Amino acid sequence: MKIVNGGVTAAKGFKAASVSCGIKKSKKDDLALLFSDGPCASAGTFTINRIRSGSVALSEERIKKGNAQAIIVNSGNANCCSGNKELKNAASVTDLTARRLGLDNSKVLIASTGIIGRPLPAGKILKGINSLVKGLKVNNGSKFAKAIMTTDTVHKEIAVRITIGNKKVIIGGAVKGSGMICPNMATMLAFFTTDALIERSALKAAFKEAVQCSFNRITVDGDMSTNDSAFILANGMAQNRVIRKASADYFKFLDALKAVSIDLAKKIVLDGEGATRFIEVAVKGAGNKQDAEKIARHIAGSSLVKTMIAGGDPNWGRVAASIGSSGARIDAKKTDIYFGKTPVMKNGFAVEASRKILLDMFREKEIHITVDLNSGAGSEKIWTCDLTKRYIEINAEYET
Amino acid sequence: MKIVNGGVTAAKGFKAASVSCGIKKSKKDDLALLFSDGPCASAGTFTINRIRSGSVALSEERIKKGNAQAIIVNSGNANCCSGNKELKNAASVTDLTARRLGLDNSKVLIASTGIIGRPLPAGKILKGINSLVKGLKVNNGSKFAKAIMTTDTVHKEIAVRITIGNKKVIIGGAVKGSGMICPNMATMLAFFTTDALIERSALKAAFKEAVQCSFNRITVDGDMSTNDSAFILANGMAQNRVIRKASADYFKFLDALKAVSIDLAKKIVLDGEGATRFIEVAVKGAGNKQDAEKIARHIAGSSLVKTMIAGGDPNWGRVAASIGSSGARIDAKKTDIYFGKTPVMKNGFAVEASRKILLDMFREKEIHITVDLNSGAGSEKIWTCDLTKRYIEINAEYET
Repeated sequence: MKIVNGGVTAAKGFKAASVSCGIKKSKKDDLALLFSDGPCASAGTFTINRIRSGSVALSEERIKKGNAQAIIVNSGNANCCSGNKELKNAASVTDLTARRLGLDNSKVLIASTGIIGRPLPAGKILKGINSLVKGLKVNNGSKFAKAIMTTDTVHKEIAVRITIGNKKVIIGGAVKGSGMICPNMATMLAFFTTDALIERSALKAAFKEAVQCSFNRITVDGDMSTNDSAFILANGMAQNRVIRKASADYFKFLDALKAVSIDLAKKIVLDGEGATRFIEVAVKGAGNKQDAEKIARHIAGSSLVKTMIAGGDPNWGRVAASIGSSGARIDAKKTDIYFGKTPVMKNGFAVEASRKILLDMFREKEIHITVDLNSGAGSEKIWTCDLTKRYIEINAEYET
Repeated sequence: MKIVNGGVTAAKGFKAASVSCGIKKSKKDDLALLFSDGPCASAGTFTINRIRSGSVALSEERIKKGNAQAIIVNSGNANCCSGNKELKNAASVTDLTARRLGLDNSKVLIASTGIIGRPLPAGKILKGINSLVKGLKVNNGSKFAKAIMTTDTVHKEIAVRITIGNKKVIIGGAVKGSGMICPNMATMLAFFTTDALIERSALKAAFKEAVQCSFNRITVDGDMSTNDSAFILANGMAQNRVIRKASADYFKFLDALKAVSIDLAKKIVLDGEGATRFIEVAVKGAGNKQDAEKIARHIAGSSLVKTMIAGGDPNWGRVAASIGSSGARIDAKKTDIYFGKTPVMKNGFAVEASRKILLDMFREKEIHITVDLNSGAGSEKIWTCDLTKRYIEINAEYET
């Protein structure tokens, strides 16, 4: 597996474009399009928030067919809680896009991100579609990744190349998301493209597993968005032998897809609003996976743990308090906590550890917290970031 | 019901004292004692954190008898995760206190608050007990309330007077707590005293209900402590006719006890670390009380909602996103959101509301958010505070 340039347009046959259609006051690009020259197998996964955007509703319905070939994305407006025209607006935007692309409208999806509660300025978007379609280019991957940003400070993309049989296959991706990031996808839009030739059922299964081990394992602030969507389009243009479920090729493809999605998930955490540090919380030795996840999420969600790391202070008592209050079954007398590889609590009690080593460790960009419950084989990892004053600034001063 | 001075020593027969025994570097008082001249009926409630202080373990065991008469409290050290001497240290501290007070040691309780993972400096405490006991005075209520503080910025106390039959009865209380405040008691110590003559079973039931509707309804940062404890001592010195369960007197007593505990709970929220605003989240019209509580806690726990209020920005979309992701059953199309009495979302859609009215409302010290699900009779209220840069400062710079 080799990292290559190009993001979502690295794979054969994919083009992208972006324009400013006037949703964002900043005049930055706020409308983007991703398009495959040829037909695709496709899959998607969406927020489980019970209040959700009309764009999510439309795309979820359309992707069931599994042959989507283009996705239009607007940033600056979530098309959510904004009145009874959400679905209609999403439909008219995708209809016009489909016409300009010469596609059946069932093959065009939509994603929206931004402020909730204001009607989608469909007029502005419709006016932008012409130049958007005209602007489609194979080297516009980064432009696409930039146009989908909201409070993100950097655009996030990657692409990798693998070999299936004697053919080169590329998987690329771009994401946006930095706040409202929580279990089960959060305010995150993710777009994956691949030129792999793969059965749709295999694509669907691989995508589900990749999302599960990446985007569903990150949290920035515990808030879940109304608009989270992740999509993958596979156009088969690599002309590899077809990838079938549970084959060796499948697992090779899956590994690469996981690598891409984990890379992008970590980039979201690192770009977490105000974040200065990446934190991995690993729990092992739990009675079962559910308990391990419960504890890992609880620690990763603890404001006290996250502010402690922002402050560079190895106060493991806050981790202990978080373990005990997670709701998971634990035996305090068997519970160990490690910072990096250094034990700080063993069998529920403080361990003498060099304060200098811990303080140095807490100055690093990446902090590893490991909890060993010594009670079973359940394990889980969650990634998060620290909680800083900048998070408050960004979110207290976000203009509505 | 009339508010009176004196806090925990307002009721007849109660004395308090505090000294600096050297646990806190600041030399502020860090050891306090509460004592009743005569025997008491007593009750207590404790953290459900599975990792907890030896002080909690000892007090929970002793209060089962229901005749505690004195409580010694140290601040600056939690006596938690600190080795296998936690229980022994708690016992030696209470034993010496009991001897000096001339009480059986089963009647002396202990509460600890402060840093986790360092051995309780029992030697320092034991040396302080003599002057502590000598310092017991009836007008030391505020001194007691001050000595139990950690990151609290103000001491918190109140007392009220009611009449049972022809006798005046007083209920007083003092609490500490400002961070790590969460459902089910949080880093909070609460001490209630009353001179009411009341059956122990009635006292226990009233206390449970009062804690439920006050301390268990507040959250500052969603973190639950290892040391939360709440106690009530009733010495009967008001010589009122005995209060029996479910009598009219009982409900009068219960109302007053609730008023005292709600007042103290609100004071904790208002003194929430870095808080500038008090927030009431009320949910009604839910299918049942559990769903109402789930939603209210989810909104009150949302960093995005809390930073929005810190910033004075009426961005109700964040409330909508929080409702939908709470896990409770809702029908988006029936869901209304109000800021104060002003509807901002009706039936899942934005309502035109005067931005000036909302902005003015968000400058107030107290913000009311109401969610009406229009689906049943379930309702619940949760109190919280905003999330500001000052919270980060306090918690990132807390010295361990």
